Amino acid sequence: MLKPGPTASGGFKRINKTDKIKKMAEEIKGIFIHHVYFWLVEPGNADNKKALIDGLKKLSAVKTIQRFHIGVPANTSREVIDSTYSVSWILIFNNPADQDSYQVDPIHLRFVEECKHLWSRVQVYDTIDV
Amino acid sequence: MLKPGPTASGGFKRINKTDKIKKMAEEIKGIFIHHVYFWLVEPGNADNKKALIDGLKKLSAVKTIQRFHIGVPANTSREVIDSTYSVSWILIFNNPADQDSYQVDPIHLRFVEECKHLWSRVQVYDTIDV
Repeated sequence: MLKPGPTASGGFKRINKTDKIKKMAEEIKGIFIHHVYFWLVEPGNADNKKALIDGLKKLSAVKTIQRFHIGVPANTSREVIDSTYSVSWILIFNNPADQDSYQVDPIHLRFVEECKHLWSRVQVYDTIDV
Repeated sequence: MLKPGPTASGGFKRINKTDKIKKMAEEIKGIFIHHVYFWLVEPGNADNKKALIDGLKKLSAVKTIQRFHIGVPANTSREVIDSTYSVSWILIFNNPADQDSYQVDPIHLRFVEECKHLWSRVQVYDTIDV
C-alpha cells in the first residue's frame, strides 16, 4: 500500500515505479488548493481564450506556486456538471500563507490588469485538507 | 528548471530533492480532474459531515482513481470565492475513460446509495488539459 502524506514537493508523492500492482489511490494531503473557473466575455473567440491561457502561463511564475494546471471542460454531461466555463486554473500551494502572498504578488496584479477585460465571471473555490 | 509532463503516476512528477532552488512551478499535464463540491442538508451536523467524509474515503478504493483529496473551505473571503460548500472531493484520473468507469463502478454506486441523503446539492466540474 502506498503511504499518503505531505512531502517537500507540494503534497504530492510519486508512486514508486517498483510498485507493480496499484493497490490504492494516493491521498493528497498538506496542501492549499486554489481552483478558479473563468467565463470569457466572448467564449467563442479563440484569440481571447489564447490570451487568457498565455496570461495564466506567465502568472505561473509566481514563486509560491508549487504546481498548476490549466484546463478546459471535459466532454462530460450530467445535470450536476457545470461545463459552461471556458478555462480552469488550479494552483497548489504548500499552505494558506503562500496563497495570501500570491494574491498580492506583482505578477498576479499585472495578470489581473492585463487580462480582466477577457472574462465576465470568475468563480473561486479555496480548499484545505479536511 | 523542472521538466513538466505526464508520468506513469497520474500526471504528477516529484520535484527532485537535489533541486535546492525552486525556479518554477510544475505544470500538471496528462490528467482528467473531477472536482465535486458537496453542500450538506445539515451543514452544522458534524456526524453527517463525518459520514460523508467516511463515505468518500471508502469511495477512494475505486481502482481507476490515481489520486484524491478530501477538503473543506479554506479561511479565505472575497467576492469571487464560494466557501458555502461543506466538502470538496477532487479525483485525478489518467484519462476520460477511467472517469467513465468510475461513474458506474459498484463502489461508486454504493456510495451514492448510502450517502445521497446527506447532501442537498452537488456541483461538479470536469476538466482536461487545455
